[in-house]
Amino acid sequence: MRLKYTLEAEDGKARAATVSLPRGEFQTPIFMPVGTLATVKAMTTEEVASIGAQVILGNAYHLYLRPGEKIVEDCGGLHKFMNWKRLILTDSGGFQIFSLRALNRINDQGVTFRSHVDGSEHFMDPRSSMAIQAALGSDIAMAFDHCPPSDAPPADVEDAMRRTTLWAQQCVGEPRPEHQCRFGIVQGGLDLELRRRHLEEICSLPFDGFALGGLSVGETPEEMAVVLDAIAHQMPADRPRYLMGVGRPEDLVTAIGLGIDMFDCVMPTRNARNGQLFTQDGRIVITNAKHREDTNPPDAECTCSTCANYSRAYLRHLYVSKEILYSRLATLHNLHFVIDLVGRARQAILEGRYDAFSRSFFERRTAQK
Amino acid sequence: MRLKYTLEAEDGKARAATVSLPRGEFQTPIFMPVGTLATVKAMTTEEVASIGAQVILGNAYHLYLRPGEKIVEDCGGLHKFMNWKRLILTDSGGFQIFSLRALNRINDQGVTFRSHVDGSEHFMDPRSSMAIQAALGSDIAMAFDHCPPSDAPPADVEDAMRRTTLWAQQCVGEPRPEHQCRFGIVQGGLDLELRRRHLEEICSLPFDGFALGGLSVGETPEEMAVVLDAIAHQMPADRPRYLMGVGRPEDLVTAIGLGIDMFDCVMPTRNARNGQLFTQDGRIVITNAKHREDTNPPDAECTCSTCANYSRAYLRHLYVSKEILYSRLATLHNLHFVIDLVGRARQAILEGRYDAFSRSFFERRTAQK
Repeated sequence: MRLKYTLEAEDGKARAATVSLPRGEFQTPIFMPVGTLATVKAMTTEEVASIGAQVILGNAYHLYLRPGEKIVEDCGGLHKFMNWKRLILTDSGGFQIFSLRALNRINDQGVTFRSHVDGSEHFMDPRSSMAIQAALGSDIAMAFDHCPPSDAPPADVEDAMRRTTLWAQQCVGEPRPEHQCRFGIVQGGLDLELRRRHLEEICSLPFDGFALGGLSVGETPEEMAVVLDAIAHQMPADRPRYLMGVGRPEDLVTAIGLGIDMFDCVMPTRNARNGQLFTQDGRIVITNAKHREDTNPPDAECTCSTCANYSRAYLRHLYVSKEILYSRLATLHNLHFVIDLVGRARQAILEGRYDAFSRSFFERRTAQK
Repeated sequence: MRLKYTLEAEDGKARAATVSLPRGEFQTPIFMPVGTLATVKAMTTEEVASIGAQVILGNAYHLYLRPGEKIVEDCGGLHKFMNWKRLILTDSGGFQIFSLRALNRINDQGVTFRSHVDGSEHFMDPRSSMAIQAALGSDIAMAFDHCPPSDAPPADVEDAMRRTTLWAQQCVGEPRPEHQCRFGIVQGGLDLELRRRHLEEICSLPFDGFALGGLSVGETPEEMAVVLDAIAHQMPADRPRYLMGVGRPEDLVTAIGLGIDMFDCVMPTRNARNGQLFTQDGRIVITNAKHREDTNPPDAECTCSTCANYSRAYLRHLYVSKEILYSRLATLHNLHFVIDLVGRARQAILEGRYDAFSRSFFERRTAQK
């Protein structure tokens, strides 16, 4: 294995670890900001590093379409292209092809899809997805998977599982850069029996880590928690467990408690741009009239530079005036909030008090409702 | 006078000075980034300070409409509201009312105009403009003036001059914060005789500095240079001379050589957002196909963080993908370019070689054409 998972503490099912890769390491639990198109939207990489991000995401589908992985490679790889000195995980493109309704035809050979940018037709299969991720030079590449919709009938879920396993077997045979680790993706929808079966299939393959796909795709938080409760702790204990596409603060606290190590999600950054700011007491909507003359920071307990320097009144003014600075300050705050939350969760695990941490987190939110 | 102008060097008509105000000082010649709506578009104030900006602009018209000067005042004034620790100059709103086609009726009492935001009707006069600027708490307030279009017939120009003088007389009688200086604005279009006459009228009033308005409003660079050549050196030698709305690199070098001390313009920031980047050899358009795989920085000689860390290929990718980070990196570069240019002009004046500096600047641009 190219990756070393060093467990530092267990507290119930929750885990704290250090994950070492050929070009760097990171501490878990970890939240990884999403940098779809070679940028964490509105942020410089210096800022993303300054708030403690250790790994960011790139995306094979998006970067294949724009600017093209060849250009990124010619510019020295994704790290150099976007000036990020820490680690990068790239998603394989599978999820985007399905979720962006770009899908045209799918069979066991691969996927024919239309670009969401210009409608042009393209083909992607396990081989090309791994080649794109190799060209991007990410530290962790994800297997090319088939992610069915949350309301797919059982037969479709099983078909996607079968295909995902077939593709996973192909992925592990593809060439990759010396420094690149590879993670498998477990599908199976909300059916625990299917999930268990697919977990077994995927985890029998020589991946460096394993991810749960097909969650946070429309089901309720409770439905997701049922799956995590049954499945997360069954994933190999000696490798990282990654829950894809999850970043709602409540979901992070729940999933960490059930044994998940890694997370990514566009939600903190997208919510920020849409006017929703995280606070210890839940979300605030910055456009609300009550913030018009509010000289308080977004979150009085927050230590980020937005909260140190700016009032809700100023942020609301920037938002209403469609100023770019709004997106910057809001994104910085929300990312800081989530990374700080996960960091405090890690500390609680190390100190054997995760249960109390989780309880107090949820009690405070309930109190505000 | 609340302002002290200390001449450090003269080189031909070009001047280098230190201007001391109650709450800070700045060196001239100076380029002042525009922060219309309490933000230099796409920038944090830390970044604006980091590239050497000493004074930024705010705008009475825009801030009166959004968020309202009362809210800014309640938040501790414009400096605190936007987290800017250096100096602020506010424009009076006169130019915006005329240039944004918001004008409804004008007479000697003041101006009735429609908000460009929501069409609502408002009234502004010298008293209210000065009151707004007092509430904002800027370090330099501009007199409320009447700026006619560049193609106005002589009778209209004369009428605007007469009204601007009347209003200037009212402005100097209005109350202002202890720390606030006040600048008068000279109109007169491109007619040298009218310009001279109005210069005399405005400069007879007790302002702390004087500005040339009604230039860079549609005339050619050559037409503007003729006015500057005749007028700039006639402005009081013991006070700052401010050329409003000028920021094209070529115009800066010309105007400094003719005796102007202060400049502001949205052009460097707006051009940046529109894909035009300044270089020592002239502008580049980042969307050009030739930059698609160009691993060079925007300007190989530039010391800004954009040029240190990013390629033209990356900037083009961000621009094409409509990523916010593009506007940030491009704005930082263009502002750095202009502030650095003016800083080098100052150094050349101090060392008595402004003529050579100016010649080499223009020769290099001509060579590239």
